[in-house]
Amino acid sequence: TIDLDRLMGRIAALGRIGALPGGGCKRLALTPEDAEGRALVTGWFRDLGLDVHTDVIGNCWAIRPGRSSGAPVVMGSHIDTVATGGLYDGVLGVLGGLEVIESAIQAGIETERPLAVAFFTNEEGARFAPDMMGSGVAQGGLDLDEILAKVGIDGVSVAEALAAIGAAGSHPVGALAPDTYLELHIEQGPVLEAEGLAIGVVTGVQGISWTEITVEGQAAHAGTTPMALRHDAGLVAARIAAEARAIADAFGPPQVATVGRIALTPDLVNVIPERAVLTVDLRNADEARLQAAEARLFAQAEAFAAAEGCRLSRRTLARFEPVAFDATLVDAVEAGAAALGLTHRRMPSGAGHDAQMFAPRCPSAMIFVPSQDGISHNIREYTAPEEIAPGVRLLAQVALARAGR
Amino acid sequence: TIDLDRLMGRIAALGRIGALPGGGCKRLALTPEDAEGRALVTGWFRDLGLDVHTDVIGNCWAIRPGRSSGAPVVMGSHIDTVATGGLYDGVLGVLGGLEVIESAIQAGIETERPLAVAFFTNEEGARFAPDMMGSGVAQGGLDLDEILAKVGIDGVSVAEALAAIGAAGSHPVGALAPDTYLELHIEQGPVLEAEGLAIGVVTGVQGISWTEITVEGQAAHAGTTPMALRHDAGLVAARIAAEARAIADAFGPPQVATVGRIALTPDLVNVIPERAVLTVDLRNADEARLQAAEARLFAQAEAFAAAEGCRLSRRTLARFEPVAFDATLVDAVEAGAAALGLTHRRMPSGAGHDAQMFAPRCPSAMIFVPSQDGISHNIREYTAPEEIAPGVRLLAQVALARAGR
Ligand SMILES: NC(=O)NCCC(=O)O
Ligand SMILES: NC(=O)NCCC(=O)O
Repeated sequence: TIDLDRLMGRIAALGRIGALPGGGCKRLALTPEDAEGRALVTGWFRDLGLDVHTDVIGNCWAIRPGRSSGAPVVMGSHIDTVATGGLYDGVLGVLGGLEVIESAIQAGIETERPLAVAFFTNEEGARFAPDMMGSGVAQGGLDLDEILAKVGIDGVSVAEALAAIGAAGSHPVGALAPDTYLELHIEQGPVLEAEGLAIGVVTGVQGISWTEITVEGQAAHAGTTPMALRHDAGLVAARIAAEARAIADAFGPPQVATVGRIALTPDLVNVIPERAVLTVDLRNADEARLQAAEARLFAQAEAFAAAEGCRLSRRTLARFEPVAFDATLVDAVEAGAAALGLTHRRMPSGAGHDAQMFAPRCPSAMIFVPSQDGISHNIREYTAPEEIAPGVRLLAQVALARAGR
Repeated sequence: TIDLDRLMGRIAALGRIGALPGGGCKRLALTPEDAEGRALVTGWFRDLGLDVHTDVIGNCWAIRPGRSSGAPVVMGSHIDTVATGGLYDGVLGVLGGLEVIESAIQAGIETERPLAVAFFTNEEGARFAPDMMGSGVAQGGLDLDEILAKVGIDGVSVAEALAAIGAAGSHPVGALAPDTYLELHIEQGPVLEAEGLAIGVVTGVQGISWTEITVEGQAAHAGTTPMALRHDAGLVAARIAAEARAIADAFGPPQVATVGRIALTPDLVNVIPERAVLTVDLRNADEARLQAAEARLFAQAEAFAAAEGCRLSRRTLARFEPVAFDATLVDAVEAGAAALGLTHRRMPSGAGHDAQMFAPRCPSAMIFVPSQDGISHNIREYTAPEEIAPGVRLLAQVALARAGR
């Protein structure tokens, strides 16, 4: 039996770090707020008498020993947020895992394998691309040196940001090698709420494609330059953003497409933009469809630029193929939900998660709980305590079973 | 006879203040660079033994007395630039006017009326809207208190910026009351070069409409939020930018339309934008057509916002009706060009100019010289010395004639 009040108290306490005026949180990866969050959470790890381990990319984990010294069953997620973040995205998986370990300790429950709780650096990808950065490096999906050199939206590199808050530890890449990886997370979408279900048994994660497109035109006077002589980089960016929407509409669900960033230079009312930098986020559960969406977007972007006499270049910020979670472990999650009498359905994840970086290396799976109004990456993100409790109970059930009571 | 080397030397010297790496200038209104430019130019005024007068909005002028003490013939323009500015926009009219006065003094030419040279605060409107701010306030077209409260792109108000560089003087609004206002300027467009002409006899300025549009949507997760449930403020902004281009294409010349600024919030790759702020610059020589363009743009913007479930608000940053210059003075400019044997044509101005703020108060006119490739508000802005000289000679001819030799 878990202590829901303790868990909700911790979620609230962590939510006060980087709290936004209207509610919600801004705790971008490797900022001073993230450092404060790390200190609070690792403090809770230590309060349980657990050693805290940190690796070279700033991932942290704490292990409760098992009767044998094999690979641990790891419960993890992240504590960084986007700039308009809520209190639950990522945090629930970390503090839920902590709650499972603390209640096991209090109940005197021992396990054969060690149990671990972990959080991974920069899952959001909001400050530094790609997302799932820490888990990707730890599990070998991303190259450490390449990642350390990535420069974020504020011009600071990952290496500099790690140094600035002293977040890097001494454990090398690969130091955390789970027997099983389990992640409890809010759904961040509308399905569970719409269907009145308590639990999402996550079967996998859709493919993610992030591209940054730079359009180079020519600065010129907004009043004197005839329309036919313009090389308006901003207009090309606008056409690309509209095309992204058109692609999502044409492909139909589950294809989604989002232009989240647009920066114009010089960004003045009476100067035709000479430069536009924008990002396009494309996702699809089907790799071939995702590639088709990319191909159409890139071709149309080139065509818009050519028609306006602009140059276009692009670089990949993140690219992950669709991931399927371990069938046996997914079955175990489903069986656990049934055993606990929780309403549930199988479903894919629309968001990227650390679990997908573990999936190639060890049996991995996820548990979703409902998101009010399906909303996340918004300060209104909310999941009620009574919706959280079943998720944590299921996490405990599956984790303890995998660890061997 | 004017001293072209002296004039070109001064243009180059002023161009070194706020010089950009690739050439050109960034000397936004009321910045430290503007202050340095003001000091240099008023120093040149004083070197001629002229008193420098400054009014409450930072306009500066210097008067060379005439035989009688009537209202002066004023030659003016501006020395602020946009962020991607050249060396000639505005500067030519000020330093050209100074050159006329200096050569008149050296040649011992006296005039009946006083001759004056002036520069006006924030003609560009790049840092603070509206444009033609100083001349508009001085001539009563803009309200001083309203203008002092305007907040610029960097969050600083006009009053604060004036104070920060100590640019405000003691002369009240209306202190500069010209008999005649003359402005020499680069064309900033392609017409004179294309037609191989030396001089543009400017008949008037087209109407200018600047609107800032704010779209409020809902921040949400780029991966999990179904397309049908989105309220993407950035997409609405993109559609408005494309519509502005469609309006210009549909209306045909001289209608132009430009979206120079777009700012998204939170501006992150995987967050659907909750807010977009953009500017639209619409211009037409025909007031009824300009109103029709505004009406279509605003209606379509509302429709795009409604279709996306977003709220939209707008505010006018600048609105000037088309202006016709004084027919007699325009005739005098044309006759002067003919008398000097300069090829010329009558033409409207696509850009706004300080002259249009004087036009309702005193006979006002403008002289254009060619712009290479028709380009301005770009560091490549260029007019050759041999193209500048005829403009300054014509300015001298008309100014001295109006002042009465
Ligand atoms: N779960 C979550 O919000 N992950 C952020 C990465 C992404 O899916 O954009
Ligand atoms: N001449 C000039 O560039 N004026 C700036 C105001 C405008 O026309 O946008």
